[in-house]
Amino acid sequence: MNIKKPTVIVDEPKMRRNIERMSEKARRNGVRLRAHFKTHQSVEVGEIIRKYGIQAITASSIDMAAYFAARGWRDITVAIPVNIRQIDDINMLAGKISLGVLVESLTSAEFLADSVRSPLRVWIEVDSGELRTGVNWKNTEKIEKIAHLIEGSEQLTLAGILTHAGQSYDQASVEAIEKVHRESISRMNEVRDHLVRGGFSDIEISVGDTPTCSLMDDFSGVDEIRPGNFVFNDLLQVSLGCCREEDIAVAVACPVIARYPERNELIIYGGGAHLATDHLMRDGSPYFGLVALPTETGWTLSVDGAWVLKIAQEHGTIRADREFINGIKVGDILMILPIHSCLTVNLHQVYQTVHGKKLTSFHYELMEDLHAFC
Amino acid sequence: MNIKKPTVIVDEPKMRRNIERMSEKARRNGVRLRAHFKTHQSVEVGEIIRKYGIQAITASSIDMAAYFAARGWRDITVAIPVNIRQIDDINMLAGKISLGVLVESLTSAEFLADSVRSPLRVWIEVDSGELRTGVNWKNTEKIEKIAHLIEGSEQLTLAGILTHAGQSYDQASVEAIEKVHRESISRMNEVRDHLVRGGFSDIEISVGDTPTCSLMDDFSGVDEIRPGNFVFNDLLQVSLGCCREEDIAVAVACPVIARYPERNELIIYGGGAHLATDHLMRDGSPYFGLVALPTETGWTLSVDGAWVLKIAQEHGTIRADREFINGIKVGDILMILPIHSCLTVNLHQVYQTVHGKKLTSFHYELMEDLHAFC
Repeated sequence: MNIKKPTVIVDEPKMRRNIERMSEKARRNGVRLRAHFKTHQSVEVGEIIRKYGIQAITASSIDMAAYFAARGWRDITVAIPVNIRQIDDINMLAGKISLGVLVESLTSAEFLADSVRSPLRVWIEVDSGELRTGVNWKNTEKIEKIAHLIEGSEQLTLAGILTHAGQSYDQASVEAIEKVHRESISRMNEVRDHLVRGGFSDIEISVGDTPTCSLMDDFSGVDEIRPGNFVFNDLLQVSLGCCREEDIAVAVACPVIARYPERNELIIYGGGAHLATDHLMRDGSPYFGLVALPTETGWTLSVDGAWVLKIAQEHGTIRADREFINGIKVGDILMILPIHSCLTVNLHQVYQTVHGKKLTSFHYELMEDLHAFC
Repeated sequence: MNIKKPTVIVDEPKMRRNIERMSEKARRNGVRLRAHFKTHQSVEVGEIIRKYGIQAITASSIDMAAYFAARGWRDITVAIPVNIRQIDDINMLAGKISLGVLVESLTSAEFLADSVRSPLRVWIEVDSGELRTGVNWKNTEKIEKIAHLIEGSEQLTLAGILTHAGQSYDQASVEAIEKVHRESISRMNEVRDHLVRGGFSDIEISVGDTPTCSLMDDFSGVDEIRPGNFVFNDLLQVSLGCCREEDIAVAVACPVIARYPERNELIIYGGGAHLATDHLMRDGSPYFGLVALPTETGWTLSVDGAWVLKIAQEHGTIRADREFINGIKVGDILMILPIHSCLTVNLHQVYQTVHGKKLTSFHYELMEDLHAFC
């Protein structure tokens, strides 16, 4: 790797294994894998995912959907409560591809019913326990009202009910994540049964968070899954027991710019602007990443007793054993394993594989794609 | 403000007052204000700063320096220990402008002495108490060795000694920040005196962190200051007592996408990808920003009892009083005051003033400026 400055590096074989594992699991379960593209945001990674038979994707904004629409994706769900301020963009994009959006209020459903000019798939977002967004799963009355509003509109089609059981990220054990998974799917099926009894048909159930999708094998009662992080994984997924460190397919290559063996520290060029500032806790102290060494084919397992101790905008402070520090020179490259790969990769418009293949990434402010495409 | 999606908004009069106050202070003290551009990273903000008579700037990477060099800036210091892997870029840029870099080791100084092909100003970075980067101020022997290496080289000039007293950010009171300031300047002067006794002349002292530069009035014994954050300020500066909330010149306008009055929460489209994930603590709990309302000329003071409680990649959860929530509809805009404006603004390639003037921002991966310019 000929690295000059902080650079996101993808281990392509690891990434392909991660994609293959998830797509195999989806196939075994007969569910659609609508992969979330917010983690990698990359055209080229998208093309690799496409080779596994995946044609439907998830995006986290209308702009990201437009970016991938302009690059050949024709079935995209934007998995965040619809931003009604982008109604013109929604109308443009819905005229071109099969676009799905989320509603979780009568206000938004009414707004869409009044304003949408092209066929639009609408998912009712259901809160199955995360307490972030969605109609509470017990509030079937409201869900049914929204469903009627959608079905009564000319351009809207009720695609189904969708949830993100993100409470999986707060669990302390694999067993607890399994419980979240079962509970969430059972609640979603109760909601679907209610809608079916109310006369609605073809109500799909969409679920999706990487912890449950990575850990669970049984997706009975589900029509599609929307994990995103699984493509790269990260230390957060490792800490939850959802993957091994060997499954992390992304690291940030950072040059060493200063050495302080007297206080067991190295300084890398690579800070909050390159790694993001997410942390995990260990022994009561936060850490912002682990440290590996580059190899011909990628990087080693993380170095014992080394971690990212502090983060400034451009500087990262590595804490490590004296012996390790003695083997590192100014100008050497360290590979930083990210805490949360989505936010790390989001900071980079361009990244690359171990072997130097360029990967380009979406950034909404710079893109003119929506208008060029629509 | 016609806002469709999360957008960084600058209150231009507030920003101009911030710049004017700091440039006046520099003038009164007879010190050079080498403004750090890493906070705004913007061509247009740079042009406003230039109108206050500022001609020398600080950047946080060679790439950022090249970006501003291509836009008419001719005197730039890159204030991070030199990344020797970018020696070719340094050589190109040093051939075009007055470039300054930092060294804090004999290794880097030797490397530069051997490899630099154009005149290059070199600052010795001195650690005056932060314990991040720089030669410890007591280690005058090493500082003198580095100084000899620089002066003995054909292309290198010893510009002076430079420090970042970032320990100011860890202080609990204005008095404690004042103590850091005095101590740091006194230590830097001890180092300079030592070098002068050793036969070196024209040794400038450069200091720079926004807390001390905002709070202190006396900069005797200093030749230049390098604050950056002061242009925008943020809640961290307010928490340190370095400015008032009224001096924060930047906020992120975010659309409300969901309301949960039953749990005192609103959801905005605006998460870690737009706000960054920095936090401050209050009553033992973290918060990720405060909440204001948009006005014709900018935004209100922050709303009592409202704050950013949680951050996901694209969603922000606002905690607020029921009464406030009752007045807010889906589609309304909330203005989020950032914890750390540098990392927030860094996430946006384009931002704007309250009145819609576009501000473009540097992002190194997309720029071809260095090679085009050099």
